Amino acid sequence: MRTQPLKVALLGCGVVGSEVARIMTTHATDLAARIGAPIELAGVAVRRGGRERAGIDPALITTDAVELVKRDDVDVVVEVIGGIEPARGLILSAMEHGASVVSANKALLAEDGSTLHAAAAKHGVDLYYEAAVAGAIPLLRPLRESLAGDKVERVLGIVNGTTNFILDRMDSTGAGFAEALDEATALGYAEADPTADIEGFDAAAKAAILAGLAFHTRVTAADVYREGITEVSAADVASAKAMDCVVKLLAICERGADGQSVSARVHPAMIPRSHPLASVREAYNAVFVESEAAGQLMFYGPGAGGAPTASAVLGDLVAVCRNKLSGATGPGESAYAALTPQPVGIARTRYHLSLDVADRAGVLAQVAAVFAQHDVSIDTVRQQGRDGDATLVIVTHTATDAALAATVADLRGMDIVRDIAGIMRVEGE
Amino acid sequence: MRTQPLKVALLGCGVVGSEVARIMTTHATDLAARIGAPIELAGVAVRRGGRERAGIDPALITTDAVELVKRDDVDVVVEVIGGIEPARGLILSAMEHGASVVSANKALLAEDGSTLHAAAAKHGVDLYYEAAVAGAIPLLRPLRESLAGDKVERVLGIVNGTTNFILDRMDSTGAGFAEALDEATALGYAEADPTADIEGFDAAAKAAILAGLAFHTRVTAADVYREGITEVSAADVASAKAMDCVVKLLAICERGADGQSVSARVHPAMIPRSHPLASVREAYNAVFVESEAAGQLMFYGPGAGGAPTASAVLGDLVAVCRNKLSGATGPGESAYAALTPQPVGIARTRYHLSLDVADRAGVLAQVAAVFAQHDVSIDTVRQQGRDGDATLVIVTHTATDAALAATVADLRGMDIVRDIAGIMRVEGE
Repeated sequence: MRTQPLKVALLGCGVVGSEVARIMTTHATDLAARIGAPIELAGVAVRRGGRERAGIDPALITTDAVELVKRDDVDVVVEVIGGIEPARGLILSAMEHGASVVSANKALLAEDGSTLHAAAAKHGVDLYYEAAVAGAIPLLRPLRESLAGDKVERVLGIVNGTTNFILDRMDSTGAGFAEALDEATALGYAEADPTADIEGFDAAAKAAILAGLAFHTRVTAADVYREGITEVSAADVASAKAMDCVVKLLAICERGADGQSVSARVHPAMIPRSHPLASVREAYNAVFVESEAAGQLMFYGPGAGGAPTASAVLGDLVAVCRNKLSGATGPGESAYAALTPQPVGIARTRYHLSLDVADRAGVLAQVAAVFAQHDVSIDTVRQQGRDGDATLVIVTHTATDAALAATVADLRGMDIVRDIAGIMRVEGE
Repeated sequence: MRTQPLKVALLGCGVVGSEVARIMTTHATDLAARIGAPIELAGVAVRRGGRERAGIDPALITTDAVELVKRDDVDVVVEVIGGIEPARGLILSAMEHGASVVSANKALLAEDGSTLHAAAAKHGVDLYYEAAVAGAIPLLRPLRESLAGDKVERVLGIVNGTTNFILDRMDSTGAGFAEALDEATALGYAEADPTADIEGFDAAAKAAILAGLAFHTRVTAADVYREGITEVSAADVASAKAMDCVVKLLAICERGADGQSVSARVHPAMIPRSHPLASVREAYNAVFVESEAAGQLMFYGPGAGGAPTASAVLGDLVAVCRNKLSGATGPGESAYAALTPQPVGIARTRYHLSLDVADRAGVLAQVAAVFAQHDVSIDTVRQQGRDGDATLVIVTHTATDAALAATVADLRGMDIVRDIAGIMRVEGE
């Protein structure tokens, strides 16, 4: 074993960063044995200095991240500050100065991963980011490496813990969205500003990263169709229950039927209670990967939190350090397939709709005619009468988003249709 | 991209080998793009020649595996013949001649993995074997690499599809073991000689490999405590049902409480129906990994079959070829922790027992006293009377195997105990 330590610069010392530093110290002997050389902190960049950090030598703390990443003695930079800037500039500077990079930054990877990959390739360093998607769950390495000899057809999963916690509460207690969000905030599952989670931005960034790896194609967050969960009502959740379904925020990445395109989308959907994703409770994550030879695989675990995310960061750190010692680099960007990201209108799913209609003869026939006109085939209709009005709960066979939107627009123009509610995709069958 | 192809020698052309050859041909363009060079078959060694193999150039077929692995132009040898010899000799010869090896051979890896790893290190080549455990499920790479910065505490899973199919049928149809085995054989889930599966040898080999990787320690199949499922009766499955449990053949690898030992065991156990492993049906596999920072992770998928196993082989093949091109090797054996494999008597589990006893006053007190004498604490007792006899269904708190065995021996010596049946471990709580 080499005795000269590899030096690690840590950018950020919040929930994840402090846990990374802690494990590096408490598990130093194991990490050295697994890497083939000891590792030690070269410095820890924080936004505001002057505060003590448990277990970290105060001499290592700096507020000058720009200088830290340029240091000659830094072998690896671990970036856990998040956001686009200054993270991107720091990572690019680190690579230029010969350091490999481990990042947990989903927003940056989803927005501009190819710039980072190009810089890594140019400077002959590594870029690893397992922690960016689904926390501790080994998912990117399996996609990048284990399935490198297979053809992935579809990735479908729950990749945001905050929204899963909220939807789980709505399902188990009957609470509305606002009430469940309050509980998530009180318990620390939602941030003070929960926008990135509840509007689906976080899940969309992860979907972009997953789609890119799964289909060997550049996919950015802007390519991902996105709907959050703020419009999901207690009535929607109850409707799902009546169908023996549960509402989940899903990230879905699919190869197009033409073989030349890919679609990535994030939206709430009803899935049958018998589907394995239905039993993913609280803030857990789970991802299905369907591929040609392997069939259906599932990966499940904690999707966030300091220690789980640190586990993923440390796994990458060990790999990157091993590569440094052997003078090699791991797999770089693989975007050779260059499939075309498709708008969501192309994706085919089933839909659930709840229509308030006038309760008179011939209504169902008229409504059904509108669906037929747009080539949207109806799977089931449940009719509930109520004082002159009636509710039609309709589940369609698979149809495109565009066809469904056109159907809904026509339905809204009909006298006999008083209201349309509970429009939600149905997945997992 | 390099235009000169990397050459692959395939040992074995059965269910898995023919699928590997097929994917290498049909997905040649994708594989080349992912590796950075084309790959092509250098030769395919089979036991008996003269038969046509779909999609394989007859000129590539040879019955002389010994010569094939020595060829100078072979970069990688894929071994899918299984068993100890001639597989071991061929792999060692291949490494000596500079080829990296991808193997799906669980029996060999579990019996003598360290010899193979040592040869790989000596000759500067790779040894990858993802397909040896849990088929297509990416499990070894996550353990070897993703969790390399974490501390694994426990691995618990269903790693044999044949026995899971049999137990699943016994549970869902009430069939006995023999009847369910017949069905498994008829459907191709069990081999003509099912010994390796039903006696737990296959699962024990996988447990040894998992324990070795999880705990950075050498563990061989001989270190694994093993019980098969041939003694599991319809009555046991019914007893489990009455407790809202299901019987599964589990592989369990645990770090000892002393931190210096490791235990690996394979045996049938009752697990609660609410446990995620309880819903693993038919021939599927699923493995839980519990580690200090990541928490509880689960990996699920098809555990066997030609295409799924080929997917794992191809993933390794891509990795090994990439390493060849970059002049590096992947992670080798990691056995630095050198924990002591412990006999199963040390492992602590809960037990289910069903006692036929004389139905008279004071029996429960006498039985309970025997348990107490051996420090086996009783969790629940259910008493069912029946014509002068009674049945006591007892579930204990955690106890060692040794303590339970001593308790059972004493119980058997008691006049009031007519029979002891349904002794089974209870896990997953």
